[in-house]
Amino acid sequence: MTTAWRCSHIASRHELRRFATSARRREIRSIAELPPRIYPGFRETSNHDLLALQWPAPPRNILFVRKNDDAPVQNALNEYTHHVKSTYPDTNLVFEPDVAKQIHEAFDFPVYTVTGDDTHVPYHEKVDLTTTLGGDGTILHAASLFATATSVPPVLSFSMGTLGFLGEWKFPDYKRAFRDVYVSGHPSSLHATHPLSTPTDGGSGPTTTSSAWPSSSPSLRGKSMGPTRAARVLMRNRLRIGIFSPTGARLPHEPPFAHPSPTQAQTPTNPNNNPTNQDIFALNEVLLHRGATPHLAHLTILIGSPPHQRTLTTAIADGFLISTPTGSTAYSLSAGGSIVHPLVSSLLLTPICPRSLSFRPLVLPANTPVTLRIEAGNRGKEIEVSVDGVRRRQGLRAGMEVRVMGEEVRKPGTRDWRGGVPSIVRSGGVMAEGEDHWVGGLNGLLKFNYPFGEEG
Amino acid sequence: MTTAWRCSHIASRHELRRFATSARRREIRSIAELPPRIYPGFRETSNHDLLALQWPAPPRNILFVRKNDDAPVQNALNEYTHHVKSTYPDTNLVFEPDVAKQIHEAFDFPVYTVTGDDTHVPYHEKVDLTTTLGGDGTILHAASLFATATSVPPVLSFSMGTLGFLGEWKFPDYKRAFRDVYVSGHPSSLHATHPLSTPTDGGSGPTTTSSAWPSSSPSLRGKSMGPTRAARVLMRNRLRIGIFSPTGARLPHEPPFAHPSPTQAQTPTNPNNNPTNQDIFALNEVLLHRGATPHLAHLTILIGSPPHQRTLTTAIADGFLISTPTGSTAYSLSAGGSIVHPLVSSLLLTPICPRSLSFRPLVLPANTPVTLRIEAGNRGKEIEVSVDGVRRRQGLRAGMEVRVMGEEVRKPGTRDWRGGVPSIVRSGGVMAEGEDHWVGGLNGLLKFNYPFGEEG
Amino acid sequence: MTTAWRCSHIASRHELRRFATSARRREIRSIAELPPRIYPGFRETSNHDLLALQWPAPPRNILFVRKNDDAPVQNALNEYTHHVKSTYPDTNLVFEPDVAKQIHEAFDFPVYTVTGDDTHVPYHEKVDLTTTLGGDGTILHAASLFATATSVPPVLSFSMGTLGFLGEWKFPDYKRAFRDVYVSGHPSSLHATHPLSTPTDGGSGPTTTSSAWPSSSPSLRGKSMGPTRAARVLMRNRLRIGIFSPTGARLPHEPPFAHPSPTQAQTPTNPNNNPTNQDIFALNEVLLHRGATPHLAHLTILIGSPPHQRTLTTAIADGFLISTPTGSTAYSLSAGGSIVHPLVSSLLLTPICPRSLSFRPLVLPANTPVTLRIEAGNRGKEIEVSVDGVRRRQGLRAGMEVRVMGEEVRKPGTRDWRGGVPSIVRSGGVMAEGEDHWVGGLNGLLKFNYPFGEEG
Amino acid sequence: MTTAWRCSHIASRHELRRFATSARRREIRSIAELPPRIYPGFRETSNHDLLALQWPAPPRNILFVRKNDDAPVQNALNEYTHHVKSTYPDTNLVFEPDVAKQIHEAFDFPVYTVTGDDTHVPYHEKVDLTTTLGGDGTILHAASLFATATSVPPVLSFSMGTLGFLGEWKFPDYKRAFRDVYVSGHPSSLHATHPLSTPTDGGSGPTTTSSAWPSSSPSLRGKSMGPTRAARVLMRNRLRIGIFSPTGARLPHEPPFAHPSPTQAQTPTNPNNNPTNQDIFALNEVLLHRGATPHLAHLTILIGSPPHQRTLTTAIADGFLISTPTGSTAYSLSAGGSIVHPLVSSLLLTPICPRSLSFRPLVLPANTPVTLRIEAGNRGKEIEVSVDGVRRRQGLRAGMEVRVMGEEVRKPGTRDWRGGVPSIVRSGGVMAEGEDHWVGGLNGLLKFNYPFGEEG
Repeated sequence: MTTAWRCSHIASRHELRRFATSARRREIRSIAELPPRIYPGFRETSNHDLLALQWPAPPRNILFVRKNDDAPVQNALNEYTHHVKSTYPDTNLVFEPDVAKQIHEAFDFPVYTVTGDDTHVPYHEKVDLTTTLGGDGTILHAASLFATATSVPPVLSFSMGTLGFLGEWKFPDYKRAFRDVYVSGHPSSLHATHPLSTPTDGGSGPTTTSSAWPSSSPSLRGKSMGPTRAARVLMRNRLRIGIFSPTGARLPHEPPFAHPSPTQAQTPTNPNNNPTNQDIFALNEVLLHRGATPHLAHLTILIGSPPHQRTLTTAIADGFLISTPTGSTAYSLSAGGSIVHPLVSSLLLTPICPRSLSFRPLVLPANTPVTLRIEAGNRGKEIEVSVDGVRRRQGLRAGMEVRVMGEEVRKPGTRDWRGGVPSIVRSGGVMAEGEDHWVGGLNGLLKFNYPFGEEG
Repeated sequence: MTTAWRCSHIASRHELRRFATSARRREIRSIAELPPRIYPGFRETSNHDLLALQWPAPPRNILFVRKNDDAPVQNALNEYTHHVKSTYPDTNLVFEPDVAKQIHEAFDFPVYTVTGDDTHVPYHEKVDLTTTLGGDGTILHAASLFATATSVPPVLSFSMGTLGFLGEWKFPDYKRAFRDVYVSGHPSSLHATHPLSTPTDGGSGPTTTSSAWPSSSPSLRGKSMGPTRAARVLMRNRLRIGIFSPTGARLPHEPPFAHPSPTQAQTPTNPNNNPTNQDIFALNEVLLHRGATPHLAHLTILIGSPPHQRTLTTAIADGFLISTPTGSTAYSLSAGGSIVHPLVSSLLLTPICPRSLSFRPLVLPANTPVTLRIEAGNRGKEIEVSVDGVRRRQGLRAGMEVRVMGEEVRKPGTRDWRGGVPSIVRSGGVMAEGEDHWVGGLNGLLKFNYPFGEEG
Repeated sequence: MTTAWRCSHIASRHELRRFATSARRREIRSIAELPPRIYPGFRETSNHDLLALQWPAPPRNILFVRKNDDAPVQNALNEYTHHVKSTYPDTNLVFEPDVAKQIHEAFDFPVYTVTGDDTHVPYHEKVDLTTTLGGDGTILHAASLFATATSVPPVLSFSMGTLGFLGEWKFPDYKRAFRDVYVSGHPSSLHATHPLSTPTDGGSGPTTTSSAWPSSSPSLRGKSMGPTRAARVLMRNRLRIGIFSPTGARLPHEPPFAHPSPTQAQTPTNPNNNPTNQDIFALNEVLLHRGATPHLAHLTILIGSPPHQRTLTTAIADGFLISTPTGSTAYSLSAGGSIVHPLVSSLLLTPICPRSLSFRPLVLPANTPVTLRIEAGNRGKEIEVSVDGVRRRQGLRAGMEVRVMGEEVRKPGTRDWRGGVPSIVRSGGVMAEGEDHWVGGLNGLLKFNYPFGEEG
Repeated sequence: MTTAWRCSHIASRHELRRFATSARRREIRSIAELPPRIYPGFRETSNHDLLALQWPAPPRNILFVRKNDDAPVQNALNEYTHHVKSTYPDTNLVFEPDVAKQIHEAFDFPVYTVTGDDTHVPYHEKVDLTTTLGGDGTILHAASLFATATSVPPVLSFSMGTLGFLGEWKFPDYKRAFRDVYVSGHPSSLHATHPLSTPTDGGSGPTTTSSAWPSSSPSLRGKSMGPTRAARVLMRNRLRIGIFSPTGARLPHEPPFAHPSPTQAQTPTNPNNNPTNQDIFALNEVLLHRGATPHLAHLTILIGSPPHQRTLTTAIADGFLISTPTGSTAYSLSAGGSIVHPLVSSLLLTPICPRSLSFRPLVLPANTPVTLRIEAGNRGKEIEVSVDGVRRRQGLRAGMEVRVMGEEVRKPGTRDWRGGVPSIVRSGGVMAEGEDHWVGGLNGLLKFNYPFGEEG
């Protein structure tokens, strides 16, 4: 891998030099042309629950995702991308197709995207690092681009305007934030401390040599953080979701959550595309809802998987949510769910307007399989399914099932972190190590605990 | 320890033989005379989240705890204890002092209790197995007898009358239930499978020889469950609670949560009495409350421990609860908390009548240190503290702190289960492996999800 | 009007005689052929909050509404209608068109319905009394048949199977219940006590003569209740609802809430069809909801009417409910609203999954005009409107408004009850006067206050 | 009454002249020396739900109530009282005893208070107008001074610092606010419009002559508001509360809610002291609570009064609240109750931490008698009773009852407003007539509907 990386790296620099002087600049290329993805490692740290990000080599393929239809965000994106490309010339800029079309003329080098004519190389085969500009919705959207991937690249998110709950960084900090992520795990300080696993045993453990780092580059001088300042990662676990027909046949997902076609999926070189696993992943929640009909949804909730599956209840409600802890501050909170810290390995079952006074929100172990089965009592009406806020066009009919469980973020009994969305957490300054971003989020964003009346 | 165990075991049988023919029957003795405690092991099982109970030798010292002032419960206790003693003659019956006084004349053998004149040997130094007759309150009370112990003996609980949420077994099943627990982990089927740790490295791993089992005893013929039928244990984790003065000095707890005197605590042979650790443990929750004064409680909630401690908020409320998942179906549920499965490693922070519209119940990782500090705004009124429903006579004043975190039920990175309350879970029959006691509890006890109105 | 009544009454008896001997039996006729409606009076009583029903003459035109697709209900309807027609031969049986088509061959007399070829005579011009068999949904549907009427005939409702919250009577009591309503306010005991207003001054005050009562009929012997046993009426107030375009133009309602065409509405003889008033009435609630799109609804809530209108807030939620107290035990309860007694003159504003932690359900005075305005923030998506569980096919777009206020059930400063749905309340037996049907409803139907766990 | 008033009025001015030159200044006198109270009238207005305040003669005896131990409030009180006395020299300043002792030396005229040596003349026999400086707690306290009075003088409240929910005015507006109240209902503009009832028929209807108004006083020139600018009054209804022994004997209340001794109460000249009526009144709520014991309260809730009383439920909870709509934004809101507009004639029954998942807060008609009976299940523990935040020292034991119903604010069928707390509502400026103070309160004070996260 190191070799491959270096080759394509050289090719990339070569191309860049060409672009500067040729007609091939201002071009949109397919991400299929990009060098292969670099998988970072995640090191457990002794003094808190976050992980330390470790690049085996500097990230190259950077996906920029932005909020749509927002001029300040677009301006920020322009500034940000120019900074990244000029400071870290080996990076390749990847955008979603619409954004690429809109932005590529502003650059004198090519940008990359998923194009219709490439051979359906998905983002997760190429993207080393995702960075978002916008709000929580933008992060959710970025996560949806990796909804079929078991290994998601790290996400560095910048909030524009009002802080969201997921957005970790304020935009004005973008130079420092990007640098910290870029150099995190510089091998000069790491190679002796932690023998990393190879990518062949799971995709998350890189092999590396320090020569991969362009340490002599003037642009990086002074940019090493050292091991104690590695970028901190909160591994947000997701939901695995499968939809099944009354006969137990798996039903296809829809964009943006659709899996590639079976032919693509069987590509043996892609550890993410497991042909036997066509589940998708959600960062926040899956929602079953009565939709536009005022009639209630009748669903049976089953816990466990056969043969140990057990019926919890058949319930009547406007809908039901199954959320991650990350999603506990989104829709589930609106529906009365508790706020669950993202490090509590769990999933939330939250009813929406249940026709019962006693159906309280439940918090289940993350590895609990939960099945929601559509009952015949729905008068032939379809039940709507939405994943992370995107509705499936085709609703569900009686007998169909949505099967959900929490994603496994670590291979049991190992230090091999492979699932989840690695979210770069704000750090730096005196509180760097002790700061709990989540506590700050609660206070700052929810106006948590604002008292009413005068103090008694 | 093996030797000690065998010696005292022989002594015990010797004594029993004497009792049967001497005037020393119908006697109340101190538990100091009992053979030392036998620590069971807990084996992880592949197909679900419960543990398998493994006795290195048959349990001998059985503590019976019953609900007070309830004639049917007393009758059941009589029947139960006579069955146990006659079927398993090597067992020693332990009661709380009041119960012992009331019941001992019904037996022609001595019973044991904690008496005033013994040298304060606590239950957890002698009791191998606790069994309760009553309801959830009885189980809570039984747990409070081990509030200072880091290693709690297994609890086999029978519900009388209405089923509680914690009580696993119905009384009529007592013969089978006790037998299953008694023989769980018979070494003939175990000795080759799992090299258990010694009690010196933590107290939870027994050494054993198969000769310790009275396998030739006619009364046990056919009673072995075999390894696949080991009693199932749900390890309920507790809260660690310390109370501190404004200057940071530890304040003493009160009965029934009081630690033994320092002299006792320093007994080096007792792994439970760590002189540097004077925290107590709660099975359900710790409550801080304004008490009888109508004025609100002002508390600051801090997350983490110094130097990484961070203020979550200063809040005004009637009170605050910190609960275990086990306690999530008790007081916390009344106060609006979610229902949390006991296998979700977490603790709940639930406000009681907060003077804020936005203070939702929180679910935090179990290993999160949470500090509740009494603010000066309480007008000189004391804040009441209650642990598992027992109020501390001495309230708290401004500057005092209650520091709480979830109990560590397993030494990190090991299979050494040592904390928590090992609760024997109902099993047997066709559903044995697949039955989720908790799902049944939700349905049966909470009348969970009973619909209102007609179905729409 | 008395004359008109007597004439048509005679005509009706004449026809009936003909039916019994002619080929015209087993026929479906238009309600246009029925004698005009008899408006009852409602007398306030000294010792409680219910009203006493007073017929100026016996009711004749009885509308039977039943639950659909339910065989036991259909059987009950057959038994019930045969009893009514044979015991009270002057009554005319009215059904909804589908039911009439299905049932009319079972009778040797004609039944009445709203047919396509009549001149759109609405139910409220003819129906003296409505009686329902089914559940709460059936009562809601019956009320929707009078959604454009300011004066609704009394409703006698029977619950089939599980009791609903609105259904007052159990079906086996149908003979006594119907008799009590039929004879309520027999003039022999009334004419001296309360000078009733005439129908020309509001429609609710009947003129009467005692001769109108077939007191000599053997079938009615002993059926008079006397003034102290008058049928008790709970006057359930409704919501007035208007929908307006961004320019303030009134938008039409849709069936079953549609007003008759303007030509019909201007019939001067119908006090219900006020051409200047095209509001409709809801018994439970009006719902604005995001519908099938997962995106939230942005609505501005305004209190009061111009020029004193004031913005309460612009809120983001799945939806908003405005409910009557009657509706407080329906959808609003699912969404977290309080239970409001039907005699509390109020309306409830209950958000559904609000994206705010502080938007608590509100209870406003019934005469408060509340406007919900669709904001532009809804991304061009339509907001769904449902009235009493029936969705308007056409959704609402930005700038449109739903204007709601509680119905005025009594002309201010008078005893002239004219609005609301007069619901016959269960009575009889020793508790007759003191029984609060609502308290019983709470206990029996909601399983109100069922405790969890054991009693502590 | 007019005469009496004029006499004492003259006397008062005479005394003032004396004070300025004599040693009798800087004195604390008993309110027994004050002229009798002037009862205002309350006129209904056509265009909204507030009442118009009508003094038959200018108010003279002004009670100033302030928050304790707050220097800015004390400074504001000094400024305010000097302004009132110098601008309206006929006014007499009344304070609570402690305040009078602290403040009287600042004045060169006497102040009045309830002193131990007077013949227990209660405030409500003398005070024409109460004005408060502080927060909601101060207003509650002021209301408690009239807890035994059926007729409460109007309250003009100023908020200091953070706005409370009840405090209508900001302090800097004190000059205009006081003037508006003082001149409200100047007879020159009123005498022709509304023939007011006489005080003999209820105490709320004043007789008056225009000569009573010092219209020629230069200080009042231009101060008349005219009839269209009368001060607006929100009549807040209170709870009537009686406490009874198991045998049905009435138990005494405690200060500050205690009734005067029977001798005092029988003074025939005081319409407020009805010896047959020893109920007290609460502005916010009555609370029954388990107090300091962690065990739950068992209470039976009965609706109605004998013989029509009916058991709603026997419930287990931490406590129960019965609140007014005014109290719906206080404790009841903390406990999960809805926000009820003060003009909704109702009372709220809100459980506190009920041991039931289905006990939702209830809203009942204001005239519903509600009884809370202490059950024997409380293990001999007393249940604490608090009224408007003041705890009764003596708790309640099994069999005792608290009987509550909403206060009747208007004699049925009349315009005779006599109960309730007449609260002067903020007005003035362009929004004067249309402003709903309550809507503003919701928005400003509760941070109502503050969204969380980003807008989706």
